Amino acid sequence: MATDRARVRELGITPGTLPPGECNALVDVPDVSIGHVTLDSGGPANPPCLRTGVTAIHPDSRDVFTDPVTGAVHVLNGYGKSVGLSQVRELGAIETPITLTNTLNVWRVADATVTDVLERHPDATSVNAVTGECNDGLLNDIRGRHVTAEHVQQALDDASPDTTAEGCVGAGRGTTGFGWKAGIGMASRTTGEHTVGVLVLTNTGKPADLQIDGLPVGRHVQPDDVIEPPGGSIMIVVGTDASVSSRQLRRVAKRAPMGLARAGGIAHHGSGDFVIAFANERGPTIADAGLTPLFRAAVEATEEAIYNSLTQAETTTGVDGQTAPALPLEPVRDLLERRDQL
Amino acid sequence: MATDRARVRELGITPGTLPPGECNALVDVPDVSIGHVTLDSGGPANPPCLRTGVTAIHPDSRDVFTDPVTGAVHVLNGYGKSVGLSQVRELGAIETPITLTNTLNVWRVADATVTDVLERHPDATSVNAVTGECNDGLLNDIRGRHVTAEHVQQALDDASPDTTAEGCVGAGRGTTGFGWKAGIGMASRTTGEHTVGVLVLTNTGKPADLQIDGLPVGRHVQPDDVIEPPGGSIMIVVGTDASVSSRQLRRVAKRAPMGLARAGGIAHHGSGDFVIAFANERGPTIADAGLTPLFRAAVEATEEAIYNSLTQAETTTGVDGQTAPALPLEPVRDLLERRDQL
Amino acid sequence: MATDRARVRELGITPGTLPPGECNALVDVPDVSIGHVTLDSGGPANPPCLRTGVTAIHPDSRDVFTDPVTGAVHVLNGYGKSVGLSQVRELGAIETPITLTNTLNVWRVADATVTDVLERHPDATSVNAVTGECNDGLLNDIRGRHVTAEHVQQALDDASPDTTAEGCVGAGRGTTGFGWKAGIGMASRTTGEHTVGVLVLTNTGKPADLQIDGLPVGRHVQPDDVIEPPGGSIMIVVGTDASVSSRQLRRVAKRAPMGLARAGGIAHHGSGDFVIAFANERGPTIADAGLTPLFRAAVEATEEAIYNSLTQAETTTGVDGQTAPALPLEPVRDLLERRDQL
Amino acid sequence: MATDRARVRELGITPGTLPPGECNALVDVPDVSIGHVTLDSGGPANPPCLRTGVTAIHPDSRDVFTDPVTGAVHVLNGYGKSVGLSQVRELGAIETPITLTNTLNVWRVADATVTDVLERHPDATSVNAVTGECNDGLLNDIRGRHVTAEHVQQALDDASPDTTAEGCVGAGRGTTGFGWKAGIGMASRTTGEHTVGVLVLTNTGKPADLQIDGLPVGRHVQPDDVIEPPGGSIMIVVGTDASVSSRQLRRVAKRAPMGLARAGGIAHHGSGDFVIAFANERGPTIADAGLTPLFRAAVEATEEAIYNSLTQAETTTGVDGQTAPALPLEPVRDLLERRDQL
Repeated sequence: MATDRARVRELGITPGTLPPGECNALVDVPDVSIGHVTLDSGGPANPPCLRTGVTAIHPDSRDVFTDPVTGAVHVLNGYGKSVGLSQVRELGAIETPITLTNTLNVWRVADATVTDVLERHPDATSVNAVTGECNDGLLNDIRGRHVTAEHVQQALDDASPDTTAEGCVGAGRGTTGFGWKAGIGMASRTTGEHTVGVLVLTNTGKPADLQIDGLPVGRHVQPDDVIEPPGGSIMIVVGTDASVSSRQLRRVAKRAPMGLARAGGIAHHGSGDFVIAFANERGPTIADAGLTPLFRAAVEATEEAIYNSLTQAETTTGVDGQTAPALPLEPVRDLLERRDQL
Repeated sequence: MATDRARVRELGITPGTLPPGECNALVDVPDVSIGHVTLDSGGPANPPCLRTGVTAIHPDSRDVFTDPVTGAVHVLNGYGKSVGLSQVRELGAIETPITLTNTLNVWRVADATVTDVLERHPDATSVNAVTGECNDGLLNDIRGRHVTAEHVQQALDDASPDTTAEGCVGAGRGTTGFGWKAGIGMASRTTGEHTVGVLVLTNTGKPADLQIDGLPVGRHVQPDDVIEPPGGSIMIVVGTDASVSSRQLRRVAKRAPMGLARAGGIAHHGSGDFVIAFANERGPTIADAGLTPLFRAAVEATEEAIYNSLTQAETTTGVDGQTAPALPLEPVRDLLERRDQL
Repeated sequence: MATDRARVRELGITPGTLPPGECNALVDVPDVSIGHVTLDSGGPANPPCLRTGVTAIHPDSRDVFTDPVTGAVHVLNGYGKSVGLSQVRELGAIETPITLTNTLNVWRVADATVTDVLERHPDATSVNAVTGECNDGLLNDIRGRHVTAEHVQQALDDASPDTTAEGCVGAGRGTTGFGWKAGIGMASRTTGEHTVGVLVLTNTGKPADLQIDGLPVGRHVQPDDVIEPPGGSIMIVVGTDASVSSRQLRRVAKRAPMGLARAGGIAHHGSGDFVIAFANERGPTIADAGLTPLFRAAVEATEEAIYNSLTQAETTTGVDGQTAPALPLEPVRDLLERRDQL
Repeated sequence: MATDRARVRELGITPGTLPPGECNALVDVPDVSIGHVTLDSGGPANPPCLRTGVTAIHPDSRDVFTDPVTGAVHVLNGYGKSVGLSQVRELGAIETPITLTNTLNVWRVADATVTDVLERHPDATSVNAVTGECNDGLLNDIRGRHVTAEHVQQALDDASPDTTAEGCVGAGRGTTGFGWKAGIGMASRTTGEHTVGVLVLTNTGKPADLQIDGLPVGRHVQPDDVIEPPGGSIMIVVGTDASVSSRQLRRVAKRAPMGLARAGGIAHHGSGDFVIAFANERGPTIADAGLTPLFRAAVEATEEAIYNSLTQAETTTGVDGQTAPALPLEPVRDLLERRDQL
């Protein structure tokens, strides 16, 4: 099954107008590194069934506790448990790695992120962890809260600027989207001067709504058994090397959900949809009139990252024998081919 | 030229999955009435060239100053001059008709809206007008500020529940979008129990970005001379007969820009993108878990209203001989036909 | 009656711990100038009775339309009609003088402020006026909307860095506070490095609540006939020469209402309480850790400005023979004297 | 030392104008119960030195996970780690007890609060804990993170509607304010129809600034060694039995910091100042015009609760032999006595 999985761009689909960065991933933003720890054990017949994990994003190669990156958040739908947003809003800064996990582990993962800082900074008495979550309870034994401090530490330690894994990795192991298995997806855009990279953790969307670069995929193909995840959500992490203020960065962050909309998302009631953004360059800020390319980049990279979170994910069976099928790629290729004949 | 103009649904395009209301317009929401006064005189050779107007929306048939409707606002991009939003946020209520006009007339139109209330309420000493604006300076002699109190009064007085005019009417006379002539557009959705209606004043978008229900229109057809409006913007007015609190209504309003995103908008720096929402039913509020259909309706109706604001608008020449061509409908029909063959 | 009016500091009262600037006024912030036009004509027996006006604050000696100052707003109670706040929030900038007037004139005053910019900038097609208001309808024929564009132009043109007038001037001609005649008040603080200046337009507060630097004035003296203004409100304009970002400036603005609280205000339902802040120095921004002195300065200067808006205002009779008495200063002196004996 | 400790009202001080409820405490709001677990062991000579704890507030006697109370938050200064605010803002509801603890334990306490819900609700897969924190690192071995899940469970289980303990209890064991030992304080007000109760966790304020009901305490008495807490903060929990919407409740919450201002607080940079509010009556909501008494009650009860958090706290020696002295009450009595002679 893994053999025919692909990134959406490998299918010939190129959302938007800006070119992607080298890896078309969040790690295209210089100095960013990413680590995933994936928990995948047990199954319907031998519980507990673990389909979960943790994803850690270092927004800079420097120690951000000593030298924070610029930060901003945007909440499209606040029905979620993300941790640490108030301080980011107030100070416009992020002082820890950004971590992602499942809903019921979010506080433990935040706590473990803080532990890491405390160990490296013997005098620290105040640390603001930024941790997002999606509810992977459809496939994962979420009530077991299986992500431990050790897993977090490992994700932090293993992080690399070369990480391009997508789909069923890290916090994306057990999530679903548009009725299909989803997970982690990434993409990036370059504006000539700057790079904007995005990582999404997709857990939202109804089957009929799925559009891929305008192709009405959801009208043509839907899973046999439409599964309804409990809640849903999407976490969108946006990074850039543009030197922007937190106010400007928030403007960038507010555009990211427009990429979700292009994929067919509507931010339904139960879907906690959060954007966490960072900028790791600290020079004089650019003028607001120069932000439009960054806005465009954020929309396009978010859109493509969501597609990748689907096209890279593989069919997964989890708790109670619930199965989330991988999005079949043939119908997408067919739709594209016919459009290209126009 | 007017003969081949059509609403997007007449082209066979049916965005989203919910059915529209009877008129597929904001006036499908019971008790809503709309009035337009269009200023269209002069031309490049005989200035001043007026391509502007005022649009007035009565959110209820009752006197809303005495009995306000529930109100909410959402600002996607606050680079705009909309008037009256603070009080709507604080009190969750709208106590006047909602008016729309051009950027430099916004305060005079708000003032005239207040005059109307003062005349009808001899004891009133505090009135909050809610007025939005787009910059129509590409075609209109905007600095002339030609919209007068009389025009506003006329729009208020002429308002009717039967108003279905779109395109180059009222505040939409001089606006452009995605490189084409745009203006007023409307659409609605019914959820079974409730109706959501939308009116947009479109003045935003780049030619290459235009998507219509996923059809990559902007990749296939663009205006010969791409015109860049000063600023840009979109005003989105969302109405519903669902009984919701202002908090819930704001949740609905936050989804409206997802319809803009589906059309290809990115909310560029200069585009002041505002959503003004009202609910004119005042019973016990529905549960949040029941809001998702309203969210979907707001996304879909906004998307389709934007299309109508383009397909209904006609080629217009304005100040300095600047011409905004009407979006040609043949390429849209062609793209659709071929997709339908799939 | 005017002879015994005084600034609160002349009574020996020195709120807070930071020293005031030279004039103890908003004009202590370098490059700030202020103009008032006061309308005072007619009376109960010969209507219309005008007790109103307009106040204009130039936040810089440079043309701020070409070179905006950093701006921020904070809304304590949004039950008010202030104009122009959305754009200040979005761009973190103020591009016109700040004007203040009465509730029903706010849109005309905003419009006239824009007229002034348009005349000086022949190419301008987008201008964001920032105008605040209080309801002076207790004493003023507010429904007459007597403030004209000419009055606004005069206030803008007459503005001077030497303006130290307080009490019944400009927009403060007809307002009341804590049961007494109130109006314009100012104060400033220096932090060693920076100056923070405040101008308030007071129209809020109940008689029993009035505290002056902790002295329980309202418990000892209240007006004979307690008059209830329609609505109430306070506009607080905060300026500084500290080089801060709009995010940081908003942090400063959020502290200003704490000065109102010290005076006994509770921001009652009908009181639209707004803070508009600007910073006219544009160098590299200071660190957040250095903001506390600015916070303190904003609290203390707002507190003292409110006192001055009372102690400088004179007994005024207005529409319907309604009289707002000046706060008698003897009881304040008495309370202070006895406290100083401790 | 404990013998002369008193509530501020026992000193003869009656801030504001509304009468307190029966206990003058948050528990005056019907159906509210409170539990404290205080950790007090070790000392400078025998580390670890624990001066910390956890406080749990049940906002209703019903199971709020099944039947949430109305909720709202207001952030005066977001430099803090409070957990769970996004969902409260979005849904206007609180579905768990509110817990308070020290900064570095906040995620563990939130996690334990969730554990409690999960155990009582075998099907729950999504729980939003609301947990606030102050930095007690001046006296407490905060890096040891000594508050465990068992402590949280105990605080939840021991909660009682009769809890009136203040000062060095629960999360207040190790906090300081205005240079003195502080901790938990409470107060309430009745408006005739409704009760508003407040619980504060005080950890903010400079010695010279302290005012008690206008008495300039900080000018007359200051601790010998002024100690500077790392950060500072104040958590304000406001409860009411008034039936209000979350929008209205947020209006109430925004007034609470005005009580802090009256006590002399300025919300300095490092002070994370948060208000968490709940309303446990679920009938038809009152009109906004009726909110002013609730606003007044929130201001006054917050003010008095802060005083009680000081007057009830006892001298405490903690890590590194650091001592926070109790506020001496004689100078307060003296100041009051002389004022009363006026």
